[in-house]
Amino acid sequence: MNVLKSWVNIPVDSDFTIYNIPFGIFTAEGITPRVCTAIGDSVLDIAYLADKGYLPMLEGEPKNVLKSSYLNDFMALGKSITKAVRLRLMELLSDDNNELKGHIQDRENAFFLKEEVTMLLPIEVKNYTDFYSSKEHATNVGTMFRDPDNALLPNWKHIPVGYHGRASSIILSGTPIHRPKGQTLPNGETQPVFGPCKLLDFELEMAFVTCKGNTLGTSISVEEAEDHIFGMLLFNDWSARDIQKWEYVPLGPFLAKNFASSISPWVVTLEALEPFKIAGPKQDPKVLPYLEYLGNKNYDIQLTVCLQTATGTEKQICKSNFKYMYWNMCQQLAHHTVNGCNVMVGDIYGSGTISGPTPDSYGSMLEITWKGTKPINMPDGSTRKFINDGDTVIMKGHAKINDIRVGFGEVSTEVFPSV
Amino acid sequence: MNVLKSWVNIPVDSDFTIYNIPFGIFTAEGITPRVCTAIGDSVLDIAYLADKGYLPMLEGEPKNVLKSSYLNDFMALGKSITKAVRLRLMELLSDDNNELKGHIQDRENAFFLKEEVTMLLPIEVKNYTDFYSSKEHATNVGTMFRDPDNALLPNWKHIPVGYHGRASSIILSGTPIHRPKGQTLPNGETQPVFGPCKLLDFELEMAFVTCKGNTLGTSISVEEAEDHIFGMLLFNDWSARDIQKWEYVPLGPFLAKNFASSISPWVVTLEALEPFKIAGPKQDPKVLPYLEYLGNKNYDIQLTVCLQTATGTEKQICKSNFKYMYWNMCQQLAHHTVNGCNVMVGDIYGSGTISGPTPDSYGSMLEITWKGTKPINMPDGSTRKFINDGDTVIMKGHAKINDIRVGFGEVSTEVFPSV
Repeated sequence: MNVLKSWVNIPVDSDFTIYNIPFGIFTAEGITPRVCTAIGDSVLDIAYLADKGYLPMLEGEPKNVLKSSYLNDFMALGKSITKAVRLRLMELLSDDNNELKGHIQDRENAFFLKEEVTMLLPIEVKNYTDFYSSKEHATNVGTMFRDPDNALLPNWKHIPVGYHGRASSIILSGTPIHRPKGQTLPNGETQPVFGPCKLLDFELEMAFVTCKGNTLGTSISVEEAEDHIFGMLLFNDWSARDIQKWEYVPLGPFLAKNFASSISPWVVTLEALEPFKIAGPKQDPKVLPYLEYLGNKNYDIQLTVCLQTATGTEKQICKSNFKYMYWNMCQQLAHHTVNGCNVMVGDIYGSGTISGPTPDSYGSMLEITWKGTKPINMPDGSTRKFINDGDTVIMKGHAKINDIRVGFGEVSTEVFPSV
Repeated sequence: MNVLKSWVNIPVDSDFTIYNIPFGIFTAEGITPRVCTAIGDSVLDIAYLADKGYLPMLEGEPKNVLKSSYLNDFMALGKSITKAVRLRLMELLSDDNNELKGHIQDRENAFFLKEEVTMLLPIEVKNYTDFYSSKEHATNVGTMFRDPDNALLPNWKHIPVGYHGRASSIILSGTPIHRPKGQTLPNGETQPVFGPCKLLDFELEMAFVTCKGNTLGTSISVEEAEDHIFGMLLFNDWSARDIQKWEYVPLGPFLAKNFASSISPWVVTLEALEPFKIAGPKQDPKVLPYLEYLGNKNYDIQLTVCLQTATGTEKQICKSNFKYMYWNMCQQLAHHTVNGCNVMVGDIYGSGTISGPTPDSYGSMLEITWKGTKPINMPDGSTRKFINDGDTVIMKGHAKINDIRVGFGEVSTEVFPSV
């Protein structure tokens, strides 16, 4: 990849370099919700640039595609257009291009400091599916709750196991959640009790979003999948472990999961992530033909989870990587639609908890503290088995090769007490 | 209830009497999609009536509430308005009211024969939840697949067990489905195979739809639930039993269910069903306080399933009743939101398969043929263990007390071969 330089000041270690150009939705004083990108510490109003004629590939498209509360209509334009928009923005931000750089008035109108804007939930989530595609996570859970010698269930290496989650309760980073209440069965009891969840947990996930659907009765192949996947976000799929334990047999998680899932405000495109593709784990046994794939379909994306307490003390409690995924996104989408299920523009797909091979890379408190048997010591002297009221969970992610860095920002969520 | 007579001709045994006044969406030659009701064999254009000033309670509401492809905006007006619209339509259709009856031109414009219209999917389904609330069904499944002596799992009588289904693949009655393909594990094998589902099944369900949501973090109590529930529909929640068996542990059904769920075109309001309320089964053990309820919350709704083969022969294979539900809709909605999960206008909730106490009242082929061990003999000499290509499954439902009949029409779906 050529080295690109921008005339915009981009701090060292910024997630939002000229190689990234993610998409989001912002609003600001006097500015209606609209499509934007992030560059360095700035937010760039794409709707304004289109109005001023900087984005000829959008001429003829309805204005409300960019002046919208969600990215859905923009994504639905299709990759041929949205890729061209991203490349054009990279061009306009390049040091050797004077079009926007040289137009003081437009620069003043189009650029906002990140402190001046309010980011909004970027996607109107139509359907949400959660996968369970980290072998290390599934193995840890199987070891803890079933049989260490047969931790993975027989279907796990044949199917990218997934289930339907709740679309309505997907919320933006920065939105606090209340500790959920629900039924649990205390150890040794036969009668359930009702009250605030005692084992609140995060799940370090990434999510992808589709920009192109399929008709009911048709399928999307592994080869076609990348044309349907717009990009990715950070995703914290909150879990109430004690509620889940009592409710989930035989039909899967329900109230243990549907009280909240937090996403980051920026959608990083598959194209921006292209340089970070790497090989996935070897799949043995061989998968069925509809799940076979060629080339690199995993991504080397470094992920961290920090826990911040009400006193302000903070500790990094997990360092994982998206590259550990056993099943890749193309396989997930092919499997999801192989029965004819239709997906839509604006559907979200969680990876499942992304755990790595070592304890410091586990993607949930359940695994990090091994069901609470190995509490985390926090710098302020407190300990954590699960998440306390007043805690904030902060997930970050970025990919980096040499000087090329593409990041996701963060998804940060504070936990309030039950109401 | 007073006996009501209509000046519209209503055939004996019509589901669409003056006591019903369901809501749907139709289109016809030269007529854009809009809200309508059914009376006898006619479809009545409610948007036209509003335009002509017959519905004063809608004056001041946006026109597109009625001239819409979905009922969502109409439902969102709230029950105080939608109930008034229904009562006003009953008034206009009453024998002793001359307003519409006496206006030949408006009658000509507002009424359509059912053969002249195309009914559309009435709801833009935002989220879909499927419950599992028939004790007889859960007992049958538990007996077949687990332990006849402990057929019900320990949580079943404490929780209205439910899980998230797929909203995108909910389709209208009359839309054919293709037999889904997927992974299954043949008996005695360790390697799965891929191909058309061999054990395709229907599930006789009813669904309710919400017209009022709640904010994330708040709950809807059992007492408040009826104000959030707009009405009910017939619901065939298609299932691929062999795909389900291989995929569903530990996270629940996925591809076995998300290829299609069929609904009827008419939403029958809770108000129309009020006369048919009856007591539900005694709940023992006592439920937790948030699930306690007062008064009658079950409904006496007679349900049938007919199987029609490609040769045209037809047989009624199930006669069940919605009154058998162990958990009622108010309990389901209270449970769904007790953790703070937010529901939305246009969310759909399936009851789960509605089986009665006797084999002729079982609501799925799985139960009727007891896993295929007791095939059904069809009038044309063929037999059925599950559903064949070319079969059409037709579900009907109605409630009746003396001369008061309120029905749902039907949900009818033909099965095409795999593509």
